Amino acid sequence: MLEHMMMLVLQLGVIIFAAHSGGLLFKRFRMPSVLGEILAGALIGPYALGSVVLPGLPEGLFPRPGVFPISVGLYGFTTIASVLLLFLVGLKTNLRLFLQYSVPGTVVGVGGALVSFVLGDLAVVLCSNYVFGVRYGFADPVPLFLGVISTATSVSVTARILTDRKKVDSPEGVTILSGAVIDDVLGIILLAIVIGVARSGTIEWARVGGVAFRSVAIWLGCTVLGLAFARQIAGALKKSRDAATMAVLSLGLALIVAGLFEQAGLAMIIGAYIMGLSLSRTDLANVIQDQLSSLYRFFVPIFFCVMGMLVNFQEMGSTRVLVFGLI
Amino acid sequence: MLEHMMMLVLQLGVIIFAAHSGGLLFKRFRMPSVLGEILAGALIGPYALGSVVLPGLPEGLFPRPGVFPISVGLYGFTTIASVLLLFLVGLKTNLRLFLQYSVPGTVVGVGGALVSFVLGDLAVVLCSNYVFGVRYGFADPVPLFLGVISTATSVSVTARILTDRKKVDSPEGVTILSGAVIDDVLGIILLAIVIGVARSGTIEWARVGGVAFRSVAIWLGCTVLGLAFARQIAGALKKSRDAATMAVLSLGLALIVAGLFEQAGLAMIIGAYIMGLSLSRTDLANVIQDQLSSLYRFFVPIFFCVMGMLVNFQEMGSTRVLVFGLI
Repeated sequence: MLEHMMMLVLQLGVIIFAAHSGGLLFKRFRMPSVLGEILAGALIGPYALGSVVLPGLPEGLFPRPGVFPISVGLYGFTTIASVLLLFLVGLKTNLRLFLQYSVPGTVVGVGGALVSFVLGDLAVVLCSNYVFGVRYGFADPVPLFLGVISTATSVSVTARILTDRKKVDSPEGVTILSGAVIDDVLGIILLAIVIGVARSGTIEWARVGGVAFRSVAIWLGCTVLGLAFARQIAGALKKSRDAATMAVLSLGLALIVAGLFEQAGLAMIIGAYIMGLSLSRTDLANVIQDQLSSLYRFFVPIFFCVMGMLVNFQEMGSTRVLVFGLI
Repeated sequence: MLEHMMMLVLQLGVIIFAAHSGGLLFKRFRMPSVLGEILAGALIGPYALGSVVLPGLPEGLFPRPGVFPISVGLYGFTTIASVLLLFLVGLKTNLRLFLQYSVPGTVVGVGGALVSFVLGDLAVVLCSNYVFGVRYGFADPVPLFLGVISTATSVSVTARILTDRKKVDSPEGVTILSGAVIDDVLGIILLAIVIGVARSGTIEWARVGGVAFRSVAIWLGCTVLGLAFARQIAGALKKSRDAATMAVLSLGLALIVAGLFEQAGLAMIIGAYIMGLSLSRTDLANVIQDQLSSLYRFFVPIFFCVMGMLVNFQEMGSTRVLVFGLI
């Protein structure tokens, strides 16, 4: 256990420096600092410098992975970071704008999900002969599954870039975010359809309907409940009197909602976003944002840096070779 | 992995609420809030409410332990919390006072270590017949070992109470802290002696001298180096310009130093404290403290709450029965 903890402490220290250096460098060249953080992560990660042997660390600071490329401890920090990020983005969202642009948002979300699903599926169908050595039809399980995976847009990267550019509050930002949230909910429904197809060969509409109803009900239900009780929640939080305690407690609430969403089969970050959105209209929104800003500075670069670490150069190389081969 | 993360997010959310409720309650009754946090942890921990079955959580929110009572993910958060706590205490320490009171501090540290070592050892010698069924002499390995364990004073609890009472800067606070640090270094030397005795039956002075020299050299060396280069370190940190980034980078530095201390066989928190002490005289000290205060509010109550979770009521019950039996 102590060995694990020593590694974790060293890793986090190095990640903080790498992420901020990468971020500052990219910012100086007027590029999104989030890209710098991801690249810094890829550079120091287990597939690059991370596995270089150091004195006292025979497998390097970020040892080559077994099943999963990073340790549970480190992954825990990135998970909390993603909840914090989406909670704060939710807090920054202008609810009036969000509702006003919910129709284009839905169109963007549904459109995005469908387009990327069809494209992902078609790509697999077209390449199947070369990659898998088998010809798949459009409705075969494998292309369907990979199609679903490609619908998962990266909500976190989008949210972060919008935050950096202070565009969370703009019509475009709101449309993109609500689109991303809807995308995620649709992705879960599509996944249920595809798993059903894979199991039985046919689409079980009853099961799919159940999953769809449940996802949409939890998602809409929580949003409505959150908005309805926002004032009561804010009132309860205010009882702690001190601003910092209030902010940390609101984050605690976001963590619990995120965990419950995950347990219900939806994504954690959607739960965190809805919690933030609920509190966005209360007078606490600004206080919480101020108080949590140093938590943001600590956690969020760690998140993107670790995401960069998951980039496997070798696999990328091999697929690139494949793509070249195809052309 | 996702299952682990869902648990971690839920656990942290619940811990935040439990810790702050316990802390606020104790504060209202004018008791140290750290005690409230520890008790709240014991209450919701795996040995009490934590293992109660909940819907969707068949083993409860904090399942009964296998080898170690809490998950790696959760332990990671407490480790970072302890580094943060001691780093901030180091920053708050008045170096002039610290040096001025280093002589009484050393006396307190050495005296404390010797007294608790002798008492711990004697207690085992006196009780050995009842507890272990064997009579041990004063120099037998088992009583020696338990004597060493009882020298480990709880630096974290001491540091936290001093912070809450704003006494880190007082002569008493400085004496206690430097005493605790010296205690820790002496504990490591004593441990080396005892392990040597257990292995060979005699005290190998060469080995003990080696460990002692190494511990003291690293400890004093790092303190002197840290103080000597404090201005350069502060200058480098200032290049990031933005206060929040600077504070997070300084924490990153503390994490790295803590990890290196652990690797060298000393305690992490000593490394973090020395890093804080080094920066305490620079003009960054106040900026860093301000910026990291919400990180403190987030992490430190989690730390003490989880410490409370490690309390095993059942074992406590059985030893209490033993003690009663003795009386």
